[in-house]
Parts: sequence; structure tokens; C-alpha cells
Amino acid sequence: MSLKKYIRDIQDFPKEGIVFKDITPLLIDPKARKECLELLVSSVKDKKIDKVIGAESRGFFFGMLLAEELNAGFVPVRKPNKLPFETISASYDLEYGTDSLEIHTDAIQKGDRVLIHDDVLATGGTAKAVCELVEKLGGVIVQCNFLMELTFLNGREKIAGNEIFAAINY
Amino acid sequence: MSLKKYIRDIQDFPKEGIVFKDITPLLIDPKARKECLELLVSSVKDKKIDKVIGAESRGFFFGMLLAEELNAGFVPVRKPNKLPFETISASYDLEYGTDSLEIHTDAIQKGDRVLIHDDVLATGGTAKAVCELVEKLGGVIVQCNFLMELTFLNGREKIAGNEIFAAINY
Repeated sequence: MSLKKYIRDIQDFPKEGIVFKDITPLLIDPKARKECLELLVSSVKDKKIDKVIGAESRGFFFGMLLAEELNAGFVPVRKPNKLPFETISASYDLEYGTDSLEIHTDAIQKGDRVLIHDDVLATGGTAKAVCELVEKLGGVIVQCNFLMELTFLNGREKIAGNEIFAAINY
Repeated sequence: MSLKKYIRDIQDFPKEGIVFKDITPLLIDPKARKECLELLVSSVKDKKIDKVIGAESRGFFFGMLLAEELNAGFVPVRKPNKLPFETISASYDLEYGTDSLEIHTDAIQKGDRVLIHDDVLATGGTAKAVCELVEKLGGVIVQCNFLMELTFLNGREKIAGNEIFAAINY
């Protein structure tokens, strides 16, 4: 099965000139979704994972499935002021300005083996910020794991040194 | 196991006077999470479900697990301007003003049997808006399903006529 059939190109979203990769056709198809999950799981087979991080908010979808499948804890990384307990944050560059992401300080214990998941590896800004959060809390990054990688944007350079896996490549 | 042990009260979040129910301790504990999922799944046992809807964004967590467990499609309902394809919307009242939720028009087919999931049933405004979206698209609501219900807020009155289930009651 080609999983690309379940990713829909949306022209000029969220703004002109951008082609957005819509994953909702993948989420809505149980068979394709399961195949994608199996690909992601097999990429960390035989590796012990204590926590799976999902990045807000499209990283929550498969992040949660991965946590369940790997019998690991699930940890949401969120935009500012969404997490209610004590947090630390890391900022990343946008086209204009910066944004930041937060994690609960009690979400990762020192030495925890962590799988980081997000839907897309694009420029790598978000992924790098999540890596920083995990490292600040003393976690060990086992893999950075994505539904898709937009290889032409070279995002993996920003998180070089980490193992990287994407189920679909563009 | 009392699942309430895994829900953490946060005083004055997101603003003074509100006691926020933090579900991250439940998400991070694989055993408690699985028990909660089993409760939710058993509440719709023997009922055919075509689509599970998760409401942005804490409804995405168990919504996605429910879809996988029930071998159903997963459909995100999101805040305005987040879904990239053609949408319809429904508005709901906030303490001051209104907000709205959107669904992709191709997410529900006429006659689809739909399970609606969100983390909390509070005043019922969000749940009612999601019900309206499903009905506009011709879906059949099998159940409205929540991690927890704040019974003292009487939210179930707003979605009366639907089957309602919550894993945890306050």
C-alpha cells in the first residue's frame, strides 16, 4: 500500500504559496492508519522506550498510538500556557519571529528513554525545540520519528546526531 | 484501580477561581491509561462504530486510541482555520462571547455511526456543537463519550437525547 495516497495536498494553506500535507485521509482509514503505525513501531523494534512525546497538536495522533503500542507513557509537548502544571520551555524560529513549546517538568525522569513523534519533519525547528526540552530534563532521545519528512527542506540537519525515521518521504 | 488518582487538580488554571482537571498523569501511566481505554471501549461494546470524533485538542488523545481499538475512522473536530479542506462549523457560548468548531465536510458520510469523544463534559457547549456538526453531515450519534463528567455543571442537559458515558465522575 502506498501511504502517500492517504496524504492530500492542499494548495495555499495556511497561506498563499504553501502546499499543505493534509493527514486526515490517513486518520480516517483504519487499514492505512494501522499500516503506518506498524511502520513507525517497527522502526524502534527491540528498543526500550519509556516515554513517547507527541508535539502539539498533530503529533498527538500517532504519538498516542505509539505510546499504547509500545506500552510507554505519553507526554504532550504543547504551545505556551496550555499545560497546567510546572513547565520548562524552548523557543524556535518561525519565518517571522519565534514561537515556543512547553513540557511538564515531571514528564521526563533522568535517564528515561524517549521517542519523539511529530507528524511532519519540515525545517526541523519544532523537532529541535522538543529535543532541547528532553535533554534539559535529562532524558535520552532514542529516535525522532515522523509520519513524513519533507527532505528538500533539510530539517534533519537541525537534529543531526539523533536517529531519525519517517514513514513517508517527499 | 481508582482512575481519579491519575487526575490532578490544578488551582486557578487557566484563570483564578477555576480548578483545572489535569489528565497528563493518566496519559503518562500505561496501566491506568489502558484501564481507562477499556472502560470507554466496553461502554460501546457490540455497537457498530464507523467513525470516532475527537474534539480539539485533549479529545485527540483517547479519541485516537478508541478509533484504533474499534477499528473505526478517526475524525478531528478543530478550532477555526486549522482544518485545511472544506469545512462546516458550529458555534458555542463561552463565559464571554462565542467560539466555534469545524469539521471536514467529507469526514462523515450520511448514515455513518459516530462515537463522539472529548476529555471533559463540563457545561456541554463543546459537546453540543460537535453533535450539531455530526447531524448536519447526516451522521448517527451512537454515544457521547468522555474521560470525565463534572456532573455539578449539568452539561448532559445540553446534549439530552444522546447516550452519554463518562469513565470518571465528579
